[in-house]
Amino acid sequence: MTRQIRLNAFDMNCVGHIQHGMWAHPRDQSAQYTDLEHWVSLARTLEAGLFDGLFLADILGVYDVFHDSPDPSIRNAVQIPVNDPLLLIPAMAYATQHLGFGVTCNLTYEPPYTFARRMSTLDHLTKGRIGWNVVTGYLDSAARGMGLAQQPEHDSRYDVAEEYMQVAYQLWEGSWEDAAVLRDRDNRIYADPSRIHRVKHEGRHYKVDALHLSEPSPQRTPVLYQAGASDRGRAFAAEHAECIFVNGQFRHNVRDIVTDIRARAKEFGRDPYDIKFFVGATVIVAPTEAEAQDKLTEYREYASSEGALAHYSASVGVDFSRYGADEPIRFVKTNALRSNLEAITVRSGGNEWTLRKLMNMMVLGSRQAPIVGSPSQVADQMQAWVDEADVDGFNLSRTVIPECVQDFISLVVPELQSRGIMKLCYEPGTLREKLYGPGRARLPSSHPATRYRR
Amino acid sequence: MTRQIRLNAFDMNCVGHIQHGMWAHPRDQSAQYTDLEHWVSLARTLEAGLFDGLFLADILGVYDVFHDSPDPSIRNAVQIPVNDPLLLIPAMAYATQHLGFGVTCNLTYEPPYTFARRMSTLDHLTKGRIGWNVVTGYLDSAARGMGLAQQPEHDSRYDVAEEYMQVAYQLWEGSWEDAAVLRDRDNRIYADPSRIHRVKHEGRHYKVDALHLSEPSPQRTPVLYQAGASDRGRAFAAEHAECIFVNGQFRHNVRDIVTDIRARAKEFGRDPYDIKFFVGATVIVAPTEAEAQDKLTEYREYASSEGALAHYSASVGVDFSRYGADEPIRFVKTNALRSNLEAITVRSGGNEWTLRKLMNMMVLGSRQAPIVGSPSQVADQMQAWVDEADVDGFNLSRTVIPECVQDFISLVVPELQSRGIMKLCYEPGTLREKLYGPGRARLPSSHPATRYRR
Repeated sequence: MTRQIRLNAFDMNCVGHIQHGMWAHPRDQSAQYTDLEHWVSLARTLEAGLFDGLFLADILGVYDVFHDSPDPSIRNAVQIPVNDPLLLIPAMAYATQHLGFGVTCNLTYEPPYTFARRMSTLDHLTKGRIGWNVVTGYLDSAARGMGLAQQPEHDSRYDVAEEYMQVAYQLWEGSWEDAAVLRDRDNRIYADPSRIHRVKHEGRHYKVDALHLSEPSPQRTPVLYQAGASDRGRAFAAEHAECIFVNGQFRHNVRDIVTDIRARAKEFGRDPYDIKFFVGATVIVAPTEAEAQDKLTEYREYASSEGALAHYSASVGVDFSRYGADEPIRFVKTNALRSNLEAITVRSGGNEWTLRKLMNMMVLGSRQAPIVGSPSQVADQMQAWVDEADVDGFNLSRTVIPECVQDFISLVVPELQSRGIMKLCYEPGTLREKLYGPGRARLPSSHPATRYRR
Repeated sequence: MTRQIRLNAFDMNCVGHIQHGMWAHPRDQSAQYTDLEHWVSLARTLEAGLFDGLFLADILGVYDVFHDSPDPSIRNAVQIPVNDPLLLIPAMAYATQHLGFGVTCNLTYEPPYTFARRMSTLDHLTKGRIGWNVVTGYLDSAARGMGLAQQPEHDSRYDVAEEYMQVAYQLWEGSWEDAAVLRDRDNRIYADPSRIHRVKHEGRHYKVDALHLSEPSPQRTPVLYQAGASDRGRAFAAEHAECIFVNGQFRHNVRDIVTDIRARAKEFGRDPYDIKFFVGATVIVAPTEAEAQDKLTEYREYASSEGALAHYSASVGVDFSRYGADEPIRFVKTNALRSNLEAITVRSGGNEWTLRKLMNMMVLGSRQAPIVGSPSQVADQMQAWVDEADVDGFNLSRTVIPECVQDFISLVVPELQSRGIMKLCYEPGTLREKLYGPGRARLPSSHPATRYRR
């Protein structure tokens, strides 16, 4: 297979992201997240290493299910404190030329009118390097911050999301024609009013009657990311997403998800390979396998199982502190953000789960087990994922930052390049063009957003 | 008087800001507003010229009162297109060390929970150089974008604003104690949960039950700006604002406003000089008066009276296209954003206004008449404003960008410095410290925000 492996760095504007406890490692710099220098330096490193993108997660609220309290999360800096991710991007975009920037924004908490302007602004400022991870609902603790009793029910959140996308597409694709902006200094006409159209939408959840505030940006609609794993989430992703994040321990399980979503995309009239899948991964690499294992041992000393459980309890809505080590864990159907329920049931292979098994799985401060080895071992694993699970690339979580990124770039990237499965330089153009080729700065006509074009 | 004159550059993430039509001037670069390089270059220039801050205005919606249509605004790029201002700041902050950044954010359209995080994030990333211009309501066209029939009534907007400030203050000042963040690597405790407090607020307009998502930033509450001119707006400003924007043609009129607000601040238990007043001004300067007049003549060729009237019609809610040149203009009480009604009534000196008089006042594409002259003439005018109107500084609108800023810095700044009324270097510290002196990174105890401290 000559498919090129795509690389996303996965990060968040906070201290502890996925692998909890690493902040306490003496060489770790994640506590410098409030300093732009930290982020600019990361972006430049990733660009030097030909990463396709930096993806910034986000969460509103605090993980307070474990021990029915936010305290374990606060002690371990488990995504709290957490700052706004959008505001990191302009400084990093200024310091780079090619790196893409994906960002999670929860549509529940900002109306399409102002949100569409934020994204258009970022697409302009990055010269078309912006992507949006569409997230539809969040923690109850966030809902309480926003003045609601609890988050809306899962499926109805997707109804809201469908309508939200319709409005956003109209603003991005339908309000300003390409020919609207004249910048005609001689006749002193900046834009032609006859080519700018009012978006009129009156639906169940949104009502808009307005011009989009921004002129057309390089990509118009940002590159659309999604991570929904539930049935409804997959349907949404198959219709709208251009990039999808998947997680899983076993390649055949992930392959089933990928195959299912590609098939659904085809039903929507889309090319199944117009969706790129990125599987979540953590890599620990060193010149030799033994050194990589030593590094894992060193990192593990800092791994926080309290942090890992605080995160996981909130993700699945189960307070694991209520279980004894070998007591069977009975999952209850919850309204949790990420439908990890199916995922973990699959993972258990039908066997009963216990806290002990769970803790054993949490090698490095999360339930994402690291890929550990020499450069060729890591590359073998990555290649196996692409070949067997039909994914397009990896969403690489950080361990000890920035050395984990530096290690990957100095050791794994050359190995992938020498195997002919990773690019030697960036393609020109926007993020969408880099992912899908020249001439693809805008969405293809098979995408539902384009029905709002004029 | 040895009071130091404060300088703000006044700008906006759009093409036409105050002096409309200038974008068509061959040397003007305002149409490069979508390029970060344009903004970073401006910020560096302002910092080299020892400006205290760059203030970014914002508007949601489009000016559609003149001719009952958005078309004149669109043709002349009168604050449309308009991109998000917040997203310019991180790149400029990265490229500078001292320059402050003020930004207009309309509290009507974002709940305090997420907005407080955005501001805390910016305060972190700028290392304490952020200010917020509190704006309470906007155009009907914006309200329609957000799904409302029209904007809320003026005075009730201030009721909402009062409650909004209470919630925001609690999040910024009361949720995380200073001692909450330990970053204790040895004991692996990032933060102490016992020093982080849930904000519980249940009011008429907002209901919040949440921790603030951000750890304490250098200033906690951003430096607070306000521009309200109505009676209710002045009361709000006297209680909350640290910097106030005022506008007016005559110094004695502005002095009345300044004196009134300082007196009201005293009634709130504040030091009247804990409020800095910035008067809006446009400066055209050249080595000699004759050259400055020539420059004005050259710029005037590009001034757009259509753009100026489109802007002003929307500001006061009066469609001036309905009046003949010498027909008396009867103002009607409106619900307009900026209560310019009083201002223009004052300006007319009780005389009847006509469109002809108005157009004559609009020298350069707005109703703000420029100060034109040699460096010493401009400095004389500025000094007279400080002496006679008791203002602290100037909010300088752009004409032809960037040359208007370069002219001011190379010609006026040295003149002000040689007179001993402008600093020779920046003071250390945050924006608030630069404005009020060492030890003032946070609000003083006389400010209402501090009652929420623990």
